[in-house]
Amino acid sequence: MAQKLNVALIGYKFMGKAHSNAFRQAPVFFDLDAEPVMKVLVGREEAGVKAAAAKLGWESYATDYREVVSRPDIDVVDIVTGNTSHAEIAIAAARAGKHVFCEKPLAMSVSEAREMVQAVEQAGVKHCVNFNYRKLPAIQLAKRLIDEGAIGRIFHWRSVYLQDWIVDPDFPLVWRLKKEDAGSGALGDLAAHSIDLAHFLVGDITAVSGLMETFIKERPIATSMSGLEATASQERGPVTVDDGTLFLARFSNGAIGTFEATRFAPGHRNGNIFEINGSEGSLAFNVERLNELQFYSRRDAGHVQGFRTISVTEGGEHRWVDAWWPAGHIIGWEHSFTHQVVDFIEAITQDKPATPDFRDGLKAQLVLDAVERSAASGQWVTIG
Amino acid sequence: MAQKLNVALIGYKFMGKAHSNAFRQAPVFFDLDAEPVMKVLVGREEAGVKAAAAKLGWESYATDYREVVSRPDIDVVDIVTGNTSHAEIAIAAARAGKHVFCEKPLAMSVSEAREMVQAVEQAGVKHCVNFNYRKLPAIQLAKRLIDEGAIGRIFHWRSVYLQDWIVDPDFPLVWRLKKEDAGSGALGDLAAHSIDLAHFLVGDITAVSGLMETFIKERPIATSMSGLEATASQERGPVTVDDGTLFLARFSNGAIGTFEATRFAPGHRNGNIFEINGSEGSLAFNVERLNELQFYSRRDAGHVQGFRTISVTEGGEHRWVDAWWPAGHIIGWEHSFTHQVVDFIEAITQDKPATPDFRDGLKAQLVLDAVERSAASGQWVTIG
Amino acid sequence: MAQKLNVALIGYKFMGKAHSNAFRQAPVFFDLDAEPVMKVLVGREEAGVKAAAAKLGWESYATDYREVVSRPDIDVVDIVTGNTSHAEIAIAAARAGKHVFCEKPLAMSVSEAREMVQAVEQAGVKHCVNFNYRKLPAIQLAKRLIDEGAIGRIFHWRSVYLQDWIVDPDFPLVWRLKKEDAGSGALGDLAAHSIDLAHFLVGDITAVSGLMETFIKERPIATSMSGLEATASQERGPVTVDDGTLFLARFSNGAIGTFEATRFAPGHRNGNIFEINGSEGSLAFNVERLNELQFYSRRDAGHVQGFRTISVTEGGEHRWVDAWWPAGHIIGWEHSFTHQVVDFIEAITQDKPATPDFRDGLKAQLVLDAVERSAASGQWVTIG
Amino acid sequence: MAQKLNVALIGYKFMGKAHSNAFRQAPVFFDLDAEPVMKVLVGREEAGVKAAAAKLGWESYATDYREVVSRPDIDVVDIVTGNTSHAEIAIAAARAGKHVFCEKPLAMSVSEAREMVQAVEQAGVKHCVNFNYRKLPAIQLAKRLIDEGAIGRIFHWRSVYLQDWIVDPDFPLVWRLKKEDAGSGALGDLAAHSIDLAHFLVGDITAVSGLMETFIKERPIATSMSGLEATASQERGPVTVDDGTLFLARFSNGAIGTFEATRFAPGHRNGNIFEINGSEGSLAFNVERLNELQFYSRRDAGHVQGFRTISVTEGGEHRWVDAWWPAGHIIGWEHSFTHQVVDFIEAITQDKPATPDFRDGLKAQLVLDAVERSAASGQWVTIG
Repeated sequence: MAQKLNVALIGYKFMGKAHSNAFRQAPVFFDLDAEPVMKVLVGREEAGVKAAAAKLGWESYATDYREVVSRPDIDVVDIVTGNTSHAEIAIAAARAGKHVFCEKPLAMSVSEAREMVQAVEQAGVKHCVNFNYRKLPAIQLAKRLIDEGAIGRIFHWRSVYLQDWIVDPDFPLVWRLKKEDAGSGALGDLAAHSIDLAHFLVGDITAVSGLMETFIKERPIATSMSGLEATASQERGPVTVDDGTLFLARFSNGAIGTFEATRFAPGHRNGNIFEINGSEGSLAFNVERLNELQFYSRRDAGHVQGFRTISVTEGGEHRWVDAWWPAGHIIGWEHSFTHQVVDFIEAITQDKPATPDFRDGLKAQLVLDAVERSAASGQWVTIG
Repeated sequence: MAQKLNVALIGYKFMGKAHSNAFRQAPVFFDLDAEPVMKVLVGREEAGVKAAAAKLGWESYATDYREVVSRPDIDVVDIVTGNTSHAEIAIAAARAGKHVFCEKPLAMSVSEAREMVQAVEQAGVKHCVNFNYRKLPAIQLAKRLIDEGAIGRIFHWRSVYLQDWIVDPDFPLVWRLKKEDAGSGALGDLAAHSIDLAHFLVGDITAVSGLMETFIKERPIATSMSGLEATASQERGPVTVDDGTLFLARFSNGAIGTFEATRFAPGHRNGNIFEINGSEGSLAFNVERLNELQFYSRRDAGHVQGFRTISVTEGGEHRWVDAWWPAGHIIGWEHSFTHQVVDFIEAITQDKPATPDFRDGLKAQLVLDAVERSAASGQWVTIG
Repeated sequence: MAQKLNVALIGYKFMGKAHSNAFRQAPVFFDLDAEPVMKVLVGREEAGVKAAAAKLGWESYATDYREVVSRPDIDVVDIVTGNTSHAEIAIAAARAGKHVFCEKPLAMSVSEAREMVQAVEQAGVKHCVNFNYRKLPAIQLAKRLIDEGAIGRIFHWRSVYLQDWIVDPDFPLVWRLKKEDAGSGALGDLAAHSIDLAHFLVGDITAVSGLMETFIKERPIATSMSGLEATASQERGPVTVDDGTLFLARFSNGAIGTFEATRFAPGHRNGNIFEINGSEGSLAFNVERLNELQFYSRRDAGHVQGFRTISVTEGGEHRWVDAWWPAGHIIGWEHSFTHQVVDFIEAITQDKPATPDFRDGLKAQLVLDAVERSAASGQWVTIG
Repeated sequence: MAQKLNVALIGYKFMGKAHSNAFRQAPVFFDLDAEPVMKVLVGREEAGVKAAAAKLGWESYATDYREVVSRPDIDVVDIVTGNTSHAEIAIAAARAGKHVFCEKPLAMSVSEAREMVQAVEQAGVKHCVNFNYRKLPAIQLAKRLIDEGAIGRIFHWRSVYLQDWIVDPDFPLVWRLKKEDAGSGALGDLAAHSIDLAHFLVGDITAVSGLMETFIKERPIATSMSGLEATASQERGPVTVDDGTLFLARFSNGAIGTFEATRFAPGHRNGNIFEINGSEGSLAFNVERLNELQFYSRRDAGHVQGFRTISVTEGGEHRWVDAWWPAGHIIGWEHSFTHQVVDFIEAITQDKPATPDFRDGLKAQLVLDAVERSAASGQWVTIG
């Protein structure tokens, strides 16, 4: 592992912690062709970024991303800032010739996403949008089974992404609940993941009919915030994003689907759940039990057909798990980020496209945009 | 139990067997104010109806429903014929002053359903549409919890009704796959149940956006049929109903919902499944585990919140189960029909409305109709 | 179905209701070679038995079983009295040449059971002990899979039978808690079922090491009782049976096992649960989800191995279910009794042994006895 | 975090990797009073330990543990060698005044364990045996609920530890299958964990009746081994440990229990499973779903009682999870090791006993020993 890849991480909150962990763990558990070096952590607020850099294991810190992305010693720029600055930073990094790793959703709009794709492609750098759930062993197994034809022709996609952290009407008006900061609510935060998984596993979405709803119209204004925590003031302000979004979809291959994303589903902390039905079988998954995949095969003998719960932890059988622990010793949510980093480094060292890349990010953005337009117009909206 | 209620059952296939069982079991397990007498079974084909009457426990049989519904000794007419004749028979029975019990879906169209409602209301007879799932103890518990406010203000309804019996493209073109016989496919057969449960548990549906799809366009023509079984010929004919239907919905109380009904979900034999999320908690149900209800309460202490699996089999706590077996000794699907009969008899003897009645059947029909129109037009359709 | 079999049922409480239902339903749902006629219900208390006979569908009633078992028009004697009178009645019935159907546990002791076996064998009548769980479709599927070699050589049996109806220390001292009436507590009531299932599925038990415990030593004396319900008095009396029993076992084929039966497992209403592990796979079952069987096969491809949940409701694939409803329309606990009746009638009409028969009842009794002796002595006890 | 604690890790295979990860992650995710410094990795084979040190993040490596444990710059000695050398190394480390962290099972025998306890207590150092499952948030919640009285007086403990990695008779004779290397088989490897959890959650075990079985008596001799992987030769040798062990137990507080540990349970990769029943409720857990705890409360209203599945991932409610990710973003198996390290460091910096400590290790050893003696004699064996 002679080669080194110097990484700059822009942003250091919840996602900064997760990405830092991925860069720290990847070289320990995997045999990489290049070693990621946690070179510099970037944030606008000096005290905060300094403390975070020390805590999270970065060699140094900086407060101006512009300087950092143009530093000649930086190879990779990883962007975990608020959604509003993804485009600006990614484009700057690409123009400076850096490989770009970006949190999802890729952008605030389709046009931003298009500019980002153009920038990275013109620069010829590697680019990746962190739809991290693709990088779970169970999702890889689902993909393999679909590619093997194990469930045949796909008829149905059915996904829900259920959370419950803002059911309390007194939960404060954090940035995720403001359109100007977040772009959208459950749609961009949650449904974006489902859309990417549907693209990965089923195929292209061609048309949608959507409905967006804000159940709690006003909330106490947040006065301070740390991670997902916030303190509420007496004053209230308007929630400007969707609390829940539903949509129907048609896929290019004839499949049909339903999508739901909500933060108003008590009992579901992070229920990224889907099921796929095909002519030969079915697959089902829930990220709260991310080490498991449900599989039903019509090819089993008639008297023993049933959904089986596969523990996707078997070395030699399931992707990436050899690197971790023996079978049945489950991995956690953050491991998906480590796998994403492993794949991204491999894309760089082997000069092949990263997955999912900015084009995948743009594809998701097109669907997000179509859902918003459909919800506004009450019409089906065609994509692409 | 001095009073007797003489029953005529029109039709004797799958549903005839289930209704006969209900009339036979109801007086044995429940203390009724009136005893249902299984007087006459009616069918057009004499040999068939004669054999069925003997097998299913009917005192006699007849081949012409018109004669039977006008017999002075008949009190109740129960209709389990094909959907095309529900209206005709129900209206005749009502005009003859009989109480009418009718299988779902109530009718082939909204106008038929309206005529049926008018007929029974003008006649002043009791009327019931057999959305039997309402009469499961678990559904009654769900209703009670909602009425008690246990889940608060409802935000989300999410239902799927998943079956898989026609996934094989060589499964023959039975009557359920022909529009002229069945009215619709998964929509009227399966989604109708979900719609009624949503009406019962959440409230009125006010608008829908639907999508209907037929995955297998042609099938071998069926040459003979017995129950759900059929023999296929070499010739093929067009499937004229939906294999799967999806729709989004808005409710009058502000809740939003998704509905799906399909016969193309391998691994699900009869997955009538729903979840409801409210401001105080959630409920979830699957008819394949019909003795259980999932309940999540935000009022539980913070460290012990979680979906609980309630065994809805506790005498003294859960409706109807006292009549059967001790706790944990589960009941089956057919028991819902017995409960429906018990309730219908009580409506007659106590002169109160049956539930669900023809107005509920009409309400469901309005939604079915709206979904079809929405799927055809690509527009949202408003109901009522 | 020219032949008729006239049945006398001795006893009419909880089990009387279940057996009556079985005799009533069997000829309706199954094609039998002989029709069971519900001739006479027998009980010592006239008012009670008279009302029960009318309610449960018996043609007549009687108060002296001795007269009834010698009546020439009676073909089958079904015994659901308290455990103390099983032997006496069964022997009398056998001597009178009647086929005998008897609730479990067969007897109060091994010697009683031996006499019963001798009586029925000498009389040459058909005999059956109602370990009804054998007659669930899921258990039949388990047996078939084992016989097919689907789980290979069996290593482990692991069963628990968990109930919770007497956890409250103020629950009164009903007959089931008195040794003179019940013989034993959780052991004979619950573990007896597990033992029979182990005999059926795994093989003969050859040695046991047991432990029996009574957690609540005294309870309020019961003053009246109806079914499982009872009223408590102020006075307390000693509980003389086991609240919970545990034992280890060795099987003749080299397998080893654990058994537990308790009425002190809150949350389990009727948790008759077991798992079997063999060289090729595993099976798991819980009677509270009696329509399902869990099956794991080591012969599945390595990447898709997992416990599958089989819905044992598939006509053509699973035993008895053709007679009931379409796939996924689940049956209840009482259906096992109907299947037992169907099998018993077939044993009579086809002149073949019933299963499980009194020899199976005796085999279970030998194990119950060995467990009691082991618990008393603190030693392993060998059987047979 | 001015203080530093220099750590020497003795051993570097499977457990070395897990412990290294824990020392690396602890200071990043937790606010510690002292920073663990990964000073030196020790192993007998130079090439192996050198490579491992580089990979796992240790500053240096060494081949002689004796030199290392006496180095003045070492504060903590962590032992993950084969079971045969735990005692020797721990005693040497204690005598050198080092805090000792030791993998389970603590020792090869009760006498070894006693010597180890004596050594650490005489030296006045902190000592911990790594029964890591105690350090899962779900287990801490179980403990808290028991301590709060949420399940009342405990009646039953029921544990199984099920694995399936040696079901294949051609799996080679690795060190874990040899008595001289491993001490015992499933007993010491798996049941030891269950015993410690029972001690932690229920109380002291006072007597046992055990059964040990080796299903496959001979296996191909292993020629090379890496982690759990090994290559088999043509020659076969005897398996000298138990494949499966069962035992019954009595606890000092009147509870009774069953324990099972086996490597012959197909479908269970790492099924460390238990259930506890008490007078007020029940708890159930499976380490393959380690982020969840099942809880049943008799104090819930009668109509809504049921086992609830708690997602033990809620910041502010559940121990340690604040340090990781938002609710529903599950952690993995290895996180239990990190928590153990966090607790051990706190024991050192706050000068309080570590948990579980060597006395807990000795207590488990006493039970292991009693089970072996009981299995050999066929008698109950009393402990302590």
